[in-house]
Amino acid sequence: MTDAPEPATLTPAQLPPVAREVFRDGMACLAGAVNIVTTDGPGGRSGFTASAVCSVTDQPPTLLVCLNRGSSAAAAFAGNEGLCVNTVGPDHHDLAMLFGGKTPMADRFAASAWHSGASGAPVLEGAVVSFDCRIAQRHVVGTHEVMFCEVVGVETRPGAASVWFGRRFHELRA
Amino acid sequence: MTDAPEPATLTPAQLPPVAREVFRDGMACLAGAVNIVTTDGPGGRSGFTASAVCSVTDQPPTLLVCLNRGSSAAAAFAGNEGLCVNTVGPDHHDLAMLFGGKTPMADRFAASAWHSGASGAPVLEGAVVSFDCRIAQRHVVGTHEVMFCEVVGVETRPGAASVWFGRRFHELRA
Repeated sequence: MTDAPEPATLTPAQLPPVAREVFRDGMACLAGAVNIVTTDGPGGRSGFTASAVCSVTDQPPTLLVCLNRGSSAAAAFAGNEGLCVNTVGPDHHDLAMLFGGKTPMADRFAASAWHSGASGAPVLEGAVVSFDCRIAQRHVVGTHEVMFCEVVGVETRPGAASVWFGRRFHELRA
Repeated sequence: MTDAPEPATLTPAQLPPVAREVFRDGMACLAGAVNIVTTDGPGGRSGFTASAVCSVTDQPPTLLVCLNRGSSAAAAFAGNEGLCVNTVGPDHHDLAMLFGGKTPMADRFAASAWHSGASGAPVLEGAVVSFDCRIAQRHVVGTHEVMFCEVVGVETRPGAASVWFGRRFHELRA
């Protein structure tokens, strides 16, 4: 009688990735703010909806934004030095959907009121918080670019916030 | 009569960053999930609480985690190839606080039940979602390191989730 061979133990580097749908279903369980990320400058005015935004360090104050390099917004962000992260609340759910779809850029911006931040990027009137930024560093990861952004201005408004979880918006009170 | 000089317009790169407190108060308005990020392997078993986790791309399924290079957890993550992002729900608010403080690692892990993911990292029993990962790429940004992680396993549990907003937890239902 011979012993059965031990099952091979894979190192982490040898493990296959999960299927895309498994990943997406998992990400639907990771609650997060929804943001309209805007830019303006020599590369043109543009914006897109992103949940992939987070704080990196406060020395100096830095956040990151992930951008799909194949998206219609990508060229403008490549050509500009500034951007603004506008976190949407209950008043701006429809606007977030608009900036996440295929609507032409001019029509997206015409759907709300904006003013210009110091970076030149459009700041959404009535956003929960807006972070006006300069793009300090860019790092490509597959289909996406991670933009590391130093924060040069912050505007906050009291009131309700929204969070995306389970593929729908939920409302929060501070 | 002479005209007053035009105010100088600064390019984005010339703009000074905001004060750290302004940045922190702004970030308190950016709602997000709270995660206990764990690892195990040759570098040792370790874990810390992080809100700075987000999706990067689904080709291949990839998320990122920001880690303070000066933290007590950093050495273990530098020495290991795997990690697990465990998103906390209402049952694990105290555990998230424990993993965000100064408690010794052994005492942190003793406070809850875990099993091992394929990567070797501890998976939190009852987490809202757990992403078992291999660390595919590391990128230093100032005080922090961004770990880009390919997802090799996902576990989700139905029920409530929690989100951090306004410096406190809020409960969500799917």
